[in-house]
Amino acid sequence: MKSHTEYLHINTEERYQIVNITPEVRKAVEKSGIKEGLCLVNAMHITSSVFINDNERGLHQDFLAWVEKLAPYNIHGYKHNLTGEDNGDAHLKRTIMGREVVIAVTKGRLDFGPWEEVFYGEFDGRRDKRILIKIIGE
Amino acid sequence: MKSHTEYLHINTEERYQIVNITPEVRKAVEKSGIKEGLCLVNAMHITSSVFINDNERGLHQDFLAWVEKLAPYNIHGYKHNLTGEDNGDAHLKRTIMGREVVIAVTKGRLDFGPWEEVFYGEFDGRRDKRILIKIIGE
Amino acid sequence: MKSHTEYLHINTEERYQIVNITPEVRKAVEKSGIKEGLCLVNAMHITSSVFINDNERGLHQDFLAWVEKLAPYNIHGYKHNLTGEDNGDAHLKRTIMGREVVIAVTKGRLDFGPWEEVFYGEFDGRRDKRILIKIIGE
Repeated sequence: MKSHTEYLHINTEERYQIVNITPEVRKAVEKSGIKEGLCLVNAMHITSSVFINDNERGLHQDFLAWVEKLAPYNIHGYKHNLTGEDNGDAHLKRTIMGREVVIAVTKGRLDFGPWEEVFYGEFDGRRDKRILIKIIGE
Repeated sequence: MKSHTEYLHINTEERYQIVNITPEVRKAVEKSGIKEGLCLVNAMHITSSVFINDNERGLHQDFLAWVEKLAPYNIHGYKHNLTGEDNGDAHLKRTIMGREVVIAVTKGRLDFGPWEEVFYGEFDGRRDKRILIKIIGE
Repeated sequence: MKSHTEYLHINTEERYQIVNITPEVRKAVEKSGIKEGLCLVNAMHITSSVFINDNERGLHQDFLAWVEKLAPYNIHGYKHNLTGEDNGDAHLKRTIMGREVVIAVTKGRLDFGPWEEVFYGEFDGRRDKRILIKIIGE
């Protein structure tokens, strides 16, 4: 069994932002030399997400508007914010969008359907964050 | 390390539908010959889900009603639909229900609790879709 | 390839409760002797969750209040409850919070960001439940 581990560093311009990380994940799979296996990609922070969906700008705006509706920013609305934080909403938003994805690696490539791409979803940005990529297989 | 990859093809009768795929996943695990490992099952499309829950028809209706409440169909309600699509809701619904599951394989079997079964959740059906099953282990 | 499987037993005092299981998961990784691999942790029941977030009590209260808002307890509100159950809400709540997490194991440790910890989320408690931990790697 082989394994390969990489950490991406990211610092978004916006507090709420969606970033396509598919090229970085593809490169990690190539570097790994793994032909058959599983690739885990996860946010290493608890106010951000990694998810798979369509690379369509309107949809990304829909995602951000939707999580704001389901878990609105509200500095006085969350017990978590009594700790001095104002990011209670971000913990909930990331829960809807998910922490991680697991992707099949087949014949040395991400085994994706026609529209699948990997995104980082940031809900408390403008600070240094990390994303983990780990591939195991043969 | 061994690996086994399969693709299920599905075309639902309804736009919104939940389908039990547990038998197909069990068969793939048997075919793989893997005794200890991990089994990934994921939708290969971005408007459908794979999830684990109870095989109870009333609950499945509850799931469909609930995602409709949280992310209603609305042809004019999503920026994504400005591309000519009408499935903006389906991308959100699938996000709630999840893209994938990872299941332990122990002693050659899906290592499930008493009521766990695997389902495909379709939110933009009546067209050809695929589900990926990948098992790695020994 | 090595693998290690463990089952945690849990019976919460409350119907709705969040329990930190990070120490148990760490111990399982140590016992496994695996240095590089993937660790799956999942609820084996369909009314409970395993998820990763912050170990902050106020946030945990926020999570429980939030899932109650998105999927309220309502004995007459779910078709699933026509079976004689009253836990229709718990199946939906667990869906938001997630069934499972997959964690990278690197240099023999859970490869976590600074605030990541693993939690069990119970939405129909006061009964025996199990959590599965499976690590594969080398």
